[in-house]
Formats: sequence, C-alpha cells, structure tokens
Amino acid sequence: MCLVKAADVSAATARIAPFVRRTPLLPLPGERLLLKPENRQPTRSFKVRGAVNALGRLAEEGVRHVVAQSSGNHAQAIAYAAATYGLRATVVLPDTAPELKVTAARRLGAEVVIAPPALREVTCLALADRLGATVVGSDDFDVIAGHGSAGAEICRDLPEAGTILVPVCNGGLLAGVAVAAKETDPAITVIGVEPELAADGAASFRSGTRTAWPVEQTYRTRADGLRAPTLGALAWEHIRRYVDDMVTVSEDSIGAAAGVLWGKLGEHAEPSGAVATAAYLTHHTELPAGPVVAVISGGNAAARQE
Amino acid sequence: MCLVKAADVSAATARIAPFVRRTPLLPLPGERLLLKPENRQPTRSFKVRGAVNALGRLAEEGVRHVVAQSSGNHAQAIAYAAATYGLRATVVLPDTAPELKVTAARRLGAEVVIAPPALREVTCLALADRLGATVVGSDDFDVIAGHGSAGAEICRDLPEAGTILVPVCNGGLLAGVAVAAKETDPAITVIGVEPELAADGAASFRSGTRTAWPVEQTYRTRADGLRAPTLGALAWEHIRRYVDDMVTVSEDSIGAAAGVLWGKLGEHAEPSGAVATAAYLTHHTELPAGPVVAVISGGNAAARQE
Repeated sequence: MCLVKAADVSAATARIAPFVRRTPLLPLPGERLLLKPENRQPTRSFKVRGAVNALGRLAEEGVRHVVAQSSGNHAQAIAYAAATYGLRATVVLPDTAPELKVTAARRLGAEVVIAPPALREVTCLALADRLGATVVGSDDFDVIAGHGSAGAEICRDLPEAGTILVPVCNGGLLAGVAVAAKETDPAITVIGVEPELAADGAASFRSGTRTAWPVEQTYRTRADGLRAPTLGALAWEHIRRYVDDMVTVSEDSIGAAAGVLWGKLGEHAEPSGAVATAAYLTHHTELPAGPVVAVISGGNAAARQE
Repeated sequence: MCLVKAADVSAATARIAPFVRRTPLLPLPGERLLLKPENRQPTRSFKVRGAVNALGRLAEEGVRHVVAQSSGNHAQAIAYAAATYGLRATVVLPDTAPELKVTAARRLGAEVVIAPPALREVTCLALADRLGATVVGSDDFDVIAGHGSAGAEICRDLPEAGTILVPVCNGGLLAGVAVAAKETDPAITVIGVEPELAADGAASFRSGTRTAWPVEQTYRTRADGLRAPTLGALAWEHIRRYVDDMVTVSEDSIGAAAGVLWGKLGEHAEPSGAVATAAYLTHHTELPAGPVVAVISGGNAAARQE
C-alpha cells in the first residue's frame, strides 16, 4: 500500500492553491486554543482540498466525467472541483442528507442521485460503470494528500503548536493532517475526535483493527458529516502510524462548542465541524503543553440558511 | 415482435384477481359517460394490474429482486406487487416526482433511489446489473397483458359500450385495453387521450412513426403521470394496430374534469387520471353513438393527503 508522504502534500498544496482558501488560525480569547476555520472554504468544508487535488490530477489525465458518493460535503466538494476543471459530475447522496446539501450540489452543476444509505456505494459504482465515469472516493490517495495541505498550513503558521485536534468521519482529514504535521515535527501531538455516537474510529484505534459500526448506530449523531460506519482503509493505514490518540465527545458538548464558535468568533460550524472544539472544551486539562489547534471541518449547518 | 392477445389478457385477469380490485363502472348523472375508477386500486392506480401480473410470472420463475423506474405510479405498483409476492424491490424515481409518491413507495417496503429524469433509465439498468436484479419495464409484455384486464372488465360489464377513452403515458394501458376490447368487439371505438403539453403519442399516431418529445416539453403538463417522452416500443405496436384515434386536452380542461369527478361522483382523480374524462367533456359531440367509458387511471393527487 502506497502511503501519502510530505512531498505529496506539498505538491497538492501547490496544485490547489488557486482554487481553495488559505485559512488563518483564529485565537479563542482567554484560551490556548486556535481554530482553523475550514468552514470558510468554498462549499464550506475542508473537503474541497482533497477534491480539487484529485480532480486536478484526473483532468490532467484526460478524465471528463467523475462520480462520487458521500453524506454531503465530499459530494459538494467534488461538484465544486468538477466545475473548476470543467468536468461532468454525478454525485450520490443518502436520502438522509439535509436538503441544504442536496441543493448546494445541484447549484454547483452536479447531477444528484439520492439513494438509501445502504445502496449509496453500489449506486455510485453502478453509475460509473454504465456512464464510463471515474469514481472519486473520499479515501483516495490524492484526496488524502489534498487534505494534508491543512496540516501543512498549520505547521507553517504556528510552528510552536503542541496539539492538533481533527474531526474524524472516514479519517481522510485526520490522515492528511497527521502526515503533514508529524513529518514536519514528530513532537507534535495529533488527536482525532469523534462523536460518542459514531466512535468507530476510536474503537479501531483502541483495538488496533479497523472496525465498522452499523449505520443504525452512527446515524444517531447530530453530526451528519461524521456518520461513516468505518474509517477508510487507506486513511486507517496513516492513522495507525501517525496519530497519537482518538477521543470522543458528547452530543451536548458538540452543541455547546458550536455556540462558543458562533458567540465568540462569529464562525458558523456545522455539528460535525464543531467536534474538535468540543474536545478542547471538554478535555483541555489532559492535553499536552503548548498551543492547541482545533480544525473546524465544515459549516454547512442548516441554521446557516435561516 | 410478439404481441399480446386476448388469451394473454384472460390469463392475466385470472392471475391478478386475488390482488387487485374489480372496479365497477360509474355512470355520470345526465351524461352518456361511465367511469372506470382505477383510482380505487391498491396504490391508487391501474398500474398495479400490470405489475402484479408481471411479478407473479417472475416469482413463479424464481426471481427474488426486481428493479423498476417510473414517474411514480409504475414504481408504486411494483413496490405493491413485490410486497404481495415477497420480492425485494428497488425503484428509481425522478427528482421531480411528488413527495407523496416517494413516501408511498417507501411505505410499501421498496428501496427508493431518486435521480434526475435524464439519469432514471441508466440508473435503473446499472443497479439491476450490480445487484443481480430483474428490470420490470412499464412496456413489458406481461405488464401490458395485465393492464388489458381493465378492458376485459369493461367489455364484460357493458357489452353495448360504443367508445372507450384511455389516458396515455407510455401507452401500456391503452395498448392492453385496445387488445382486450377490439378482440372482443371490433366495432368498439378505442381512443387514447393526452395532455396537449405532452402529446408525443398523438404526434406518433398522426405520423405513423413513434415520436419522442423532449422532457423539457412533456414536463410542462400538470399531469405528472403522463410525462413519458415517448410511447413504449411494444405498446406502440399494439396502438397502431388496434387504436382508432388519439386526442388531446388542455390543462384547464384537465382541472375542470377532476372537479366534475370529485363534485358529482366523489372520485379523487390525479390530473393524469382525469384526462379521459376531460376528453369526453370537451369532445363528446364528436364521439360515435352509444355509451362512452372513460378510465380514471389514477388518484395519487397531492390533494388526497390534505
């Protein structure tokens, strides 16, 4: 298995620079916490980093039509990246996705297909076969390398960072950030954060074996972007090598963290985007010394529309 | 090409008898019109006749999983028939289908996939391939034979009928009714009815060649069950042999006809279901002598929920 290296992250960072934002680090007043606001990205999610990198590579190779499936943010990011490079995009969303995410993907020009969660994957593969299109998975090498650019930016902007807290869905963001951070400074602590109700990643980390949770369980969390039943196979290989710990947060603490981000910084985080902040607010006395960075992974909260 | 014969309709009528209703003929007071209220069927549409017949045959052959696509009524009927025979059903609906039809298909136990109209067909075929399931099309032989049972019932209940008016979407109901009626009594007049805004069938009938209308055109009509861009190939072969004429009705007359059916008979017709009645109300002076039967093809109007 070929793992993402620091050089791949550097190449991705350069490739995507014209199309994604270089987000700042925002200090939370009175705390040793800084936020990396990926909710400010186009499509309001870090996912655009991996999608733009992967589709940039595919467009160079002559691919004209891509197919993707996700709970929402990956699909939107693929739609955005496809529009960027002039590719056709067909995205498969679960029938549980918020209407906001469905509408956003359509507005970006993607063809949207909606399927029951259990049929998402097969529908995506079936359409790719029939339409002669290329599947872009959220666990692909170039996607993880693209996500790593967020970690590279953190290390460049705050070399003294002691800890980085990263939301975990299928683990692609955590994997990319961990590679970028640990290859820059092995002393930095990288921690993945999940909702207690969708803690398949933490369970995998504890047991040393990639573990799946039934979707009936992971779909209980309000953090609709973090309901993947298992870590991606490729992400997992990075996580078990590079990540220091995985922690979980309660549903209540997620809501409280989103309130702090909005009240003190004016940043709109979706529930999935607020879990790393929730981990700081809940666990900060146990974290290593030095500044802590929490990634706000996305801001597609339904409230955003209101 | 193998065409449906009266014997196929008879066999279908016997096969589906335990699972569908034998609808009566309802006289409209003061008129020479009688209504065949297929809105009273399970799933509120005639489509259950063809679906139950086709899935009955497939179940006998050992098929366990069927896939279908439609603007709503065919899919619901497939879901109903699959539940009847204990088969798994996956149905593909367009993202323009009324929420009522989506919910109804889910309630019947089907897996519902929603796709842009242009991707409906390919999604259906792709899923069938991947899942090892059997596609049941609305233009299949056994579906048309099952629909014919409505015509057989009309001829048995009203041998003196002069004219039968039948709503036309892809032409399966018209084809089946025409075979049943004309093989019983060649003197009967069978006429297909379409909205002016989705008159691809009438255009085909006039020109003698099966013609397609762009979906951008057929999607203008309020009769959401009649938006198929073309007649089915197999239905067409029956229509050009057995059908006497095709007429069209305005959007206003469809609404007025639905009002008459509700006001005078208490029958809820969806817009698609009211077009044959609209044709009688608009054209009755031009129709041959004798009683006229108009089929109410379905009653899944959104108003029904209120």
